[in-house]
Amino acid sequence: MIAVVTKYETVGHPHYPVTACLLPICSLNNMAVTTTEGIGNSARLHPVQERIAKAHGSQCGFCTPGMVMSMYALLRNYPEPTTSQIMDALSGNICRCTGYRPILDGCKTFSKASISYLNVKCRKAQKSNFPLLFNEKEFLPLDKTQELIFPPDLQVSESWMKVFQGERVTWYSPSTLKELLELRTKYPEAPLVMGNTNIGLQTNLHGVFHPVMISPINVHDLYTVAPDDAGITIGSAVTLAQLKTILSESVHKLPKHKTKTFQALIQQLRTLAGEQIRSMATLGGHIASKLAISDLNPVLAAAGAQLNLISKGKYSDLYKRKQPMCLIQVCRNISTTKKCEEFVSAFRQAQRERNAYAIVNAGMRVRFGEGTDMIQDMDIFYGGIGSTTLSAKNTSQALIGRHWNEEMLQEACRLALEEISITPSAPGGMVEYKRTMTISFFFKFFLQVLQNRNKTVSKPLVIYLSSIKDFDTEIPKTLQIFQEIDTKQPARDPVGRPIVHLSGIKQATGEAVYVDDMPPVDQELFIAFATSTRAHAKILSIDETEARQVPGVVDIIRAKDVPGKNAVDGQGTLFSEETVECVGQIICAVVADTSDHARRAATKIKIAYEDIEPAIITIEDAIKYKSFYEPFKGIKHGNAEEAFKTADHILEGEVHICGQEQFYMETNSLIVIPKGEENEFDIYVSTQDISTSQFAVAAVLGVPSNRIMSRVKRVGGAFGGKVTKPAIFASAAAVAAQKTKRPIRCVLERGEDMLITAGRHPVSGKYKVGCMNDGKIVAADVSFYTNAGCTIDESFLVLVVALVKMDSAYNFPNLNCRAIACKTNLPSNTAFRGFGFPQTVITLCMPEHMTQQNNK
Amino acid sequence: MIAVVTKYETVGHPHYPVTACLLPICSLNNMAVTTTEGIGNSARLHPVQERIAKAHGSQCGFCTPGMVMSMYALLRNYPEPTTSQIMDALSGNICRCTGYRPILDGCKTFSKASISYLNVKCRKAQKSNFPLLFNEKEFLPLDKTQELIFPPDLQVSESWMKVFQGERVTWYSPSTLKELLELRTKYPEAPLVMGNTNIGLQTNLHGVFHPVMISPINVHDLYTVAPDDAGITIGSAVTLAQLKTILSESVHKLPKHKTKTFQALIQQLRTLAGEQIRSMATLGGHIASKLAISDLNPVLAAAGAQLNLISKGKYSDLYKRKQPMCLIQVCRNISTTKKCEEFVSAFRQAQRERNAYAIVNAGMRVRFGEGTDMIQDMDIFYGGIGSTTLSAKNTSQALIGRHWNEEMLQEACRLALEEISITPSAPGGMVEYKRTMTISFFFKFFLQVLQNRNKTVSKPLVIYLSSIKDFDTEIPKTLQIFQEIDTKQPARDPVGRPIVHLSGIKQATGEAVYVDDMPPVDQELFIAFATSTRAHAKILSIDETEARQVPGVVDIIRAKDVPGKNAVDGQGTLFSEETVECVGQIICAVVADTSDHARRAATKIKIAYEDIEPAIITIEDAIKYKSFYEPFKGIKHGNAEEAFKTADHILEGEVHICGQEQFYMETNSLIVIPKGEENEFDIYVSTQDISTSQFAVAAVLGVPSNRIMSRVKRVGGAFGGKVTKPAIFASAAAVAAQKTKRPIRCVLERGEDMLITAGRHPVSGKYKVGCMNDGKIVAADVSFYTNAGCTIDESFLVLVVALVKMDSAYNFPNLNCRAIACKTNLPSNTAFRGFGFPQTVITLCMPEHMTQQNNK
Repeated sequence: MIAVVTKYETVGHPHYPVTACLLPICSLNNMAVTTTEGIGNSARLHPVQERIAKAHGSQCGFCTPGMVMSMYALLRNYPEPTTSQIMDALSGNICRCTGYRPILDGCKTFSKASISYLNVKCRKAQKSNFPLLFNEKEFLPLDKTQELIFPPDLQVSESWMKVFQGERVTWYSPSTLKELLELRTKYPEAPLVMGNTNIGLQTNLHGVFHPVMISPINVHDLYTVAPDDAGITIGSAVTLAQLKTILSESVHKLPKHKTKTFQALIQQLRTLAGEQIRSMATLGGHIASKLAISDLNPVLAAAGAQLNLISKGKYSDLYKRKQPMCLIQVCRNISTTKKCEEFVSAFRQAQRERNAYAIVNAGMRVRFGEGTDMIQDMDIFYGGIGSTTLSAKNTSQALIGRHWNEEMLQEACRLALEEISITPSAPGGMVEYKRTMTISFFFKFFLQVLQNRNKTVSKPLVIYLSSIKDFDTEIPKTLQIFQEIDTKQPARDPVGRPIVHLSGIKQATGEAVYVDDMPPVDQELFIAFATSTRAHAKILSIDETEARQVPGVVDIIRAKDVPGKNAVDGQGTLFSEETVECVGQIICAVVADTSDHARRAATKIKIAYEDIEPAIITIEDAIKYKSFYEPFKGIKHGNAEEAFKTADHILEGEVHICGQEQFYMETNSLIVIPKGEENEFDIYVSTQDISTSQFAVAAVLGVPSNRIMSRVKRVGGAFGGKVTKPAIFASAAAVAAQKTKRPIRCVLERGEDMLITAGRHPVSGKYKVGCMNDGKIVAADVSFYTNAGCTIDESFLVLVVALVKMDSAYNFPNLNCRAIACKTNLPSNTAFRGFGFPQTVITLCMPEHMTQQNNK
Repeated sequence: MIAVVTKYETVGHPHYPVTACLLPICSLNNMAVTTTEGIGNSARLHPVQERIAKAHGSQCGFCTPGMVMSMYALLRNYPEPTTSQIMDALSGNICRCTGYRPILDGCKTFSKASISYLNVKCRKAQKSNFPLLFNEKEFLPLDKTQELIFPPDLQVSESWMKVFQGERVTWYSPSTLKELLELRTKYPEAPLVMGNTNIGLQTNLHGVFHPVMISPINVHDLYTVAPDDAGITIGSAVTLAQLKTILSESVHKLPKHKTKTFQALIQQLRTLAGEQIRSMATLGGHIASKLAISDLNPVLAAAGAQLNLISKGKYSDLYKRKQPMCLIQVCRNISTTKKCEEFVSAFRQAQRERNAYAIVNAGMRVRFGEGTDMIQDMDIFYGGIGSTTLSAKNTSQALIGRHWNEEMLQEACRLALEEISITPSAPGGMVEYKRTMTISFFFKFFLQVLQNRNKTVSKPLVIYLSSIKDFDTEIPKTLQIFQEIDTKQPARDPVGRPIVHLSGIKQATGEAVYVDDMPPVDQELFIAFATSTRAHAKILSIDETEARQVPGVVDIIRAKDVPGKNAVDGQGTLFSEETVECVGQIICAVVADTSDHARRAATKIKIAYEDIEPAIITIEDAIKYKSFYEPFKGIKHGNAEEAFKTADHILEGEVHICGQEQFYMETNSLIVIPKGEENEFDIYVSTQDISTSQFAVAAVLGVPSNRIMSRVKRVGGAFGGKVTKPAIFASAAAVAAQKTKRPIRCVLERGEDMLITAGRHPVSGKYKVGCMNDGKIVAADVSFYTNAGCTIDESFLVLVVALVKMDSAYNFPNLNCRAIACKTNLPSNTAFRGFGFPQTVITLCMPEHMTQQNNK
């Protein structure tokens, strides 16, 4: 969920988008928070809501409020944004079913500069009976005077320290540097929290607990922005988004040669997380917490930026953290470059352009003697290869006095490879890849500097010049081609017409009710699961003692509490007490008054295991141990064995396809409400298959299924992942509801969901094809192995789908094919868009392709 | 709802049944409250629950928990009660659909003395295939060791004054007489509350408000029970149930001649309210508050009982209440009678034996000189004929010295009629009847004394001797005759078999969920109605000001708030703003956080009216003003007019049948829950006709009816009254839910329900019948008028039913009949068990009966 936070006194834009899950409530003192519900509703839409919805930008709708608010934040600050600003603004939002094109289409209607969206310009679009995807003339205008004002009540400037005392955590928000330093001394272990993008991840995802938090959000001294001749002094509390704005403004104002560092930083900032995170994360926090991986630190180091630290005791080394109470006061001199020829560059390589940590990054600076290509001074810093930013100090030193030519390049690479050693145990691994990147970055730097100095690039290197071009992020073109509507088609017939999603408007306004939007039910409890940490083990003991001491815990649900069958059809044991067959298998569950209490208690259940050998993980393991679900499925035509004997050529090979997480936006969510009579339950489940959950719940409770009223209103994405798996959670929650006689809410965290539910089946296909010289296939023998996981669940179905596909897509005169589900110690895999088709098609394409190749 | 309250230190039995609606929460300090949920559930039944349910004692089930708890209270005190004790224990419980026979059947299985219930002894019951209604051998035994113990935490004896401060009321519970007298002086207007059976009625039903209440429940001095030679001293705080026990025990212990007053009091106590009320109401409260109507006061007065009063100031006259702070301390000398011949008798006449105030009652005492029939001393006191108990002082005085004979009787009657004057404006009216009763009671007294003195009753009076016999309350005989089951009938075929109600057990244990048992819904509000106090008037103004100031009020719902049609199909306007057509018509509604706030605010809505003439109330009025719903319905056969000319006899007449309240145990109850999207609502209604409410709600909201999910789980009685009327309340609540976007709960109080919903149609039938000398009817002309009320609603249906009945039950060769619905200024009448049949049958029986009479 994305919200917009508005702060009264702030540097830069007062409205900024945030990811709500990372925002501690205490940090919102005196700020205004706006969600999509606050800007409009279906009775009185906000233009952003209207345009995203009517441009078909909402499908399951779970991401839509976030898209709306990111765009809203942009519009509050830039009422006529450019397409690139729009794309930047939305880059932190994920959509899994709509795709981004229609969302951008809607948003781009706000952009005067680029009415570049092609509103359904089909090749035949001139004809009048060709419908428009949407008609922007109908849209409400954006009217700044209609926007929410900052609440006058919050326009206060409080100058005293605030202390918030929660159940377990004390939050200090000092108002002066002095108070801050005192707190830092008093609580040396307490983290400094500003945007919470770092600490928040630790606490939300990794269960890190801090009894004291110090938030210097109100310490004005930390917000300095002071440009001077030497550069610019930036306070540590300035956010990355503000930094980007400040640097960009400086780039516009100052002569180009003075801002080379700024540009290198801007280049890194553009891909450093999304706009929401940049709006929350501070420069100081980034420098201090992202020691190993920071994209900015190598650039700052190479540029010789100075960090000003302060502490109540003595100054200390930030990087080594010997003195825990040291504090970044300001990060100074993100320097201007001198007039003499100096170049600063930044590099990063990540798994994708945005929203991913760099695998390796670098900052490099070189200064030449005036009018020469002789290196006067040089700095090379790398990130991602050690616990902090690393300097290639020896390399840099050794190159001083050398000319900027290919010999120097060769030497530099040799020296750098020598100097930068990456231990095989380095976090993230990929040692060889990283080593390659370190010299590859220097190679790019070499070329950049050459080109920027307008020097000729020697012939052999010219072909590499493209490598220094920025990756060109294409503005998506919105050309959608669809069928022309027959003039005789009645107006009421929707086929072929672009009709806005019936719930689109409500999804954009937040009025759409997903399971977890349902208001609390009287006496409701929350359920959290304790799951196996072993792939294959015997459970020796389960100790509830500590878990039961967590406040708010009402009960712990175990196998003995299941009144009916302790299993979900096709999905194995519900609560495992004897053995576990995969990591993530549910062992027991905690019900408590809040999700926080339930989750905390679940982590405190002590389970002792004794591993059972073997733990079968891969298809290869399964083949080795002959661990299959039998009987195999197969199809046989003709006589493949005989036909192979007649074939001119026999081709054999294997194809391996990995699994994949569905990553529906809405994690598994449900509410089970006991009706108070006769074991009747209302269950509200986010599922694609309403009756599987109904029957499963009935079976675990041991009641007829007509006692279970199963309801689905909305599903925030599923892609096949919510067919059978929700039944596990519904069943567990139902047992808890039956035992406690109270409603149970179950909403998984992303990590839990991915841990327990698995996804697309990994597949290994083995094929043997016999073909004649003319390329005609005469015989095929195909084995299709799927990694089913620890229960068979939906795997037989994927096999059947695969077999049918094999048999129907090609006409093999002599076919012998088998589909084999491997029993492994993984959570059982499930349906996924295409369910069996892609894997089969790839497997079958391979011999087809090869025989064609062969034929050529 | 009946609960059992257990008090640690108490006179008599610690467990006593109470009516929960009269029990102030503050009075329960240090007491244990047990409801049916506390004694068992369907997993572990209490024997009382089991026996009532399995003896078929639960139909709609709404009264069952009360029945269970009344019986439970009895069993806690008397594990083997007599049938008469059982009947006494249940006499305060009302059942409307089961009837009392099966309930008593179940309860009587606890009674060792009388296994008198006849378990389905059909005439052919000897045959083996004749099923038993229930098999008592299967029943759980009553095991005292399994009963709840008094919670040790509550076994405290606190000796300080308790003060409870509510939103508007302060409750003082002094612990000493001194504190009590001080409070009484400080708050002279504050009522003394013990059982709350008097004040509770005032506050619950009549909106009387007391900012301060004083409850001397913990003042030990008021609980005195001190027998001595002269009689017995009873504290004012002793309950009527305790008094009954104390007196009964004395009657057993003392010689008969000493306890004549006791017996007279016991006789009155037996019919004075039900056991629950007697368990709560105190002797002091009864004497002081029931001045006009008390059944005990005339007896106490006649017996010369002495009241001891105390106050901080001076003693005062209780009856005249000149000194408001006077206080009954003890009521003393409920005297023993002397050895000489003295007689005390008590009399009462009420509309029914129990649970009804007496119309007139009396206490009479006479003492004769030893060995003579000469009146030495005499006292006659009457209740019900003035504002306090009245003494026939002159009559008594004049008779002293007279012999106890018929001359004295004549004289006494003459004197009494002269002395006791009843003004025509006396409360309750019935002046002539009451005058008759005063001498009739004396006549009974005369006969009783004669008989008790073993004197001959003269011939002319002998025939009246039966009048002094107690009305013989017959112990119901449980003979149920039903069809013998065919031996070939399969075991699974339930027809003819006595099968326990499927929900019987849950209804007995309180697990059955009626609408108002549904737990609170998040953000729920309560609705209360402001209704018309005029039969026919124009509304001049509606002033909400004062109502909106009541705490907790969220909104006031009026005609303008109805988004769709401001009317319920067939039932007229939903919220009336222009005119009202009956008393009880809904004008507007208040929604507030609690039912108390909503109701309080509703009474504060100021509505100004201007009466419109005429106000048509009766069928006669309607005929006079020709106020009919047209067209009339009619059936015509042959030629009645011609046939009348040939008839030997023509009989004409009229029959008038009054209306009747359905008196379902569960008043109209519903919850409307907005789903948060698209005007979708879940409605949970106690109705016999689920779709009428659904369609009505859809119409007032102006949405398709598929948006309204209408649900009925249980109905706590209906009898035809919950077919169409619930739609009014559901519609009003839905408008409120739609406006406030919050769930709305609507549960009517009994008075509101009776005011707004009406009941069985009053009917006037006019008939003219022509018959021959042999009794054969040749022609009939029948007009059947129903009082439909201000809208037609279900009235046309009752007419159709009536006509069909007329036409089908008799074969009139020449028939001319009309059924006419009268439009009157009453709430529209509705279906009722038999709907039209009883009225029609009575109307048709009259001429039939008369022609038969005629024929004889």
